[in-house]
Amino acid sequence: MKKTDFYDVVVVGAGPAGLQAAIHASRKKVSVLVLGKEHKSSLFRAHVENMVSLFNATGKVMLETGRRQAKNFGSEFMDEDILKITADDGRFELETEGGNRLACKTLVLATGTARNKLRVKGEKELVGKGVSYCVDCDGNFYRGEEVTVVGSESAAADGALTLAEIAGKVHLICDDLKVSEALLAKLDNSHVVLHRGAKVKEISGKEEVNAIVLDDGTILSTSGVFIELGAKGLMELATSLGVALDDTMRFIRADKDQLTSVSGIFAAGDICGPPWQVAKAVGEGCVAGINAADYAKKLHPTL
Amino acid sequence: MKKTDFYDVVVVGAGPAGLQAAIHASRKKVSVLVLGKEHKSSLFRAHVENMVSLFNATGKVMLETGRRQAKNFGSEFMDEDILKITADDGRFELETEGGNRLACKTLVLATGTARNKLRVKGEKELVGKGVSYCVDCDGNFYRGEEVTVVGSESAAADGALTLAEIAGKVHLICDDLKVSEALLAKLDNSHVVLHRGAKVKEISGKEEVNAIVLDDGTILSTSGVFIELGAKGLMELATSLGVALDDTMRFIRADKDQLTSVSGIFAAGDICGPPWQVAKAVGEGCVAGINAADYAKKLHPTL
Ligand SMILES: Cc1cc2nc3c(=O)[nH]c(=O)nc-3n(C[C@H](O)[C@H](O)[C@H](O)COP(=O)(O)OP(=O)(O)OC[C@H]3O[C@@H](n4cnc5c(N)ncnc54)[C@H](O)[C@@H]3O)c2cc1C
Ligand SMILES: Cc1cc2nc3c(=O)[nH]c(=O)nc-3n(C[C@H](O)[C@H](O)[C@H](O)COP(=O)(O)OP(=O)(O)OC[C@H]3O[C@@H](n4cnc5c(N)ncnc54)[C@H](O)[C@@H]3O)c2cc1C
Repeated sequence: MKKTDFYDVVVVGAGPAGLQAAIHASRKKVSVLVLGKEHKSSLFRAHVENMVSLFNATGKVMLETGRRQAKNFGSEFMDEDILKITADDGRFELETEGGNRLACKTLVLATGTARNKLRVKGEKELVGKGVSYCVDCDGNFYRGEEVTVVGSESAAADGALTLAEIAGKVHLICDDLKVSEALLAKLDNSHVVLHRGAKVKEISGKEEVNAIVLDDGTILSTSGVFIELGAKGLMELATSLGVALDDTMRFIRADKDQLTSVSGIFAAGDICGPPWQVAKAVGEGCVAGINAADYAKKLHPTL
Repeated sequence: MKKTDFYDVVVVGAGPAGLQAAIHASRKKVSVLVLGKEHKSSLFRAHVENMVSLFNATGKVMLETGRRQAKNFGSEFMDEDILKITADDGRFELETEGGNRLACKTLVLATGTARNKLRVKGEKELVGKGVSYCVDCDGNFYRGEEVTVVGSESAAADGALTLAEIAGKVHLICDDLKVSEALLAKLDNSHVVLHRGAKVKEISGKEEVNAIVLDDGTILSTSGVFIELGAKGLMELATSLGVALDDTMRFIRADKDQLTSVSGIFAAGDICGPPWQVAKAVGEGCVAGINAADYAKKLHPTL
């Protein structure tokens, strides 16, 4: 068992929300540790063009730059997952996958959201090369092209309608379409091609996606596959501490100060719900970092 | 009288909040116009080092890049101030200083906040060259140096205490100190040098600040002057439309969707209150832009 280190602020998550929180907290002269893995951030494989003042940046470079900035201001980093958090008399105790034990006055939860995967051949290999989990992020790259949306709920139907205004041809692969009358009417009036009862067998392509293969052997030529099965937050750590979820029961509820329902625990980024955008993650991270540092400073120093 | 142009979304303000709102709205395929002046943004004279993934960026370059991005996605720009906004049957009508008349389905207010000025000789000339209105933004540049805070309320006292942990020597020029017992005790226990009853006559320096001159002729050597008189929002346009202010009565109240109390009017950035940081402005702009575009799309198209 290694030693227990004590920090004013522990940030769980090393994506844009966590990095921005670390930057703003450490500028307030409190001790800050960031946990989590750069390559596990949703941003790692992304190519961002819709973040103000960053022209055509790769997610990898953004994450590296952010980490360097946070280090410059004094944040420490540990590239490990947290397995357990317990609250003990106003302080939090954490255990990492490497067996490290840590304690802190305040927590910032910024663990992002795990996109639901299709789990078919070609999906993992082609993420960022034509496979996307976010129409709003990547739809614009497919102007005039043939694209496919996969999913049976409102997120997928809505994504297909958005793409219908951008792309040349849009397929919607929907196992069992479960959407409102209104959405259905819009789909019928659009040029979206519905493939009801169809299932995806494989996404194919070498350097980039070029087709999608259905269960019945149909091959659709496509340059983009949007997997819109909804998103599920990594909520276990939070709910075990009594942190309340929002009305959808899928994300953490945080107020304008990014404070959760548990005092001393702040949250920021994708874990707080949509829109899943770097700009929002960074804005919430800034507010969470400042408030976490202020909270830590106000607590009794011997805690 | 020029012609009336009609837009889905008009963004009032061309700072980081307004630019990010324009980027996200125009990616949703609605027509977007941005009003306001680049050089009037608080960011114009700033040098930003605490925004994730932007290393040591000048505000001017950030604003230019953001404007270019928004244009690429289809936003239009008009470098004019709005003099008047009226609401008419679900649409908004605007009049610019140049006599242009515009109408739109939805508004994003992102006009920032006007920092209260000292109005002394040297202040305007030396902004960004040693004169700052934000300890949290710029304090870190003065490690080990001699600095001065001007102001008599809690913002100034708090700023001086923050600087006491960074700078070598800290002066607090306070006409009439109006702070809590607790803050007073902290000031007494710190090495902040109080100049009670003092008034600033002049800030001196050529390329950068080197001294501050008091009313009684005292000259204090200083490399940084922090003017912390609080901030006042440009609220007139908003309140004339019935937009509600927050509890402090100084900023616009917006919910998590950045919607104000008036439907069709969103707000983002400094105008919504502290922290006054680019990261927060950008995060709120993203959310406001997405929601304004969605709102405009849902409105009857003939409006
Ligand atoms: C392919 C793709 C393209 C995208 N394109 C864009 C785009 O163009 N523009 C845009 O604005 N957004 C885009 N996004 C969305 C954007 O990447 C996310 O909104 C953003 O990364 C969210 O930031 P976050 O910090 O909340 O979470 P993430 O970036 O996902 O970071 C989560 C962090 O939490 C850590 N973590 C998780 N669990 C634990 C644990 N138990 N213990 C410790 N650490 C843990 C992970 O290791 C990771 O470091 C894209 C997303 C994808 C997938
Ligand atoms: C010297 C200085 C240094 C700073 N340093 C940092 C830093 O290091 N890091 C950081 O994160 N933040 C910093 N800040 C704060 C940061 O600049 C602000 O938080 C940010 O600019 C706020 O963005 P905004 O879009 O809300 O408002 P602003 O950037 O102030 O933009 C307001 C816009 O509204 C327009 N406008 C106003 N009235 C009207 C009208 N009637 N009609 C039309 N348009 C109108 C203006 O022309 C302008 O374009 C600094 C600020 C200053 C002053």
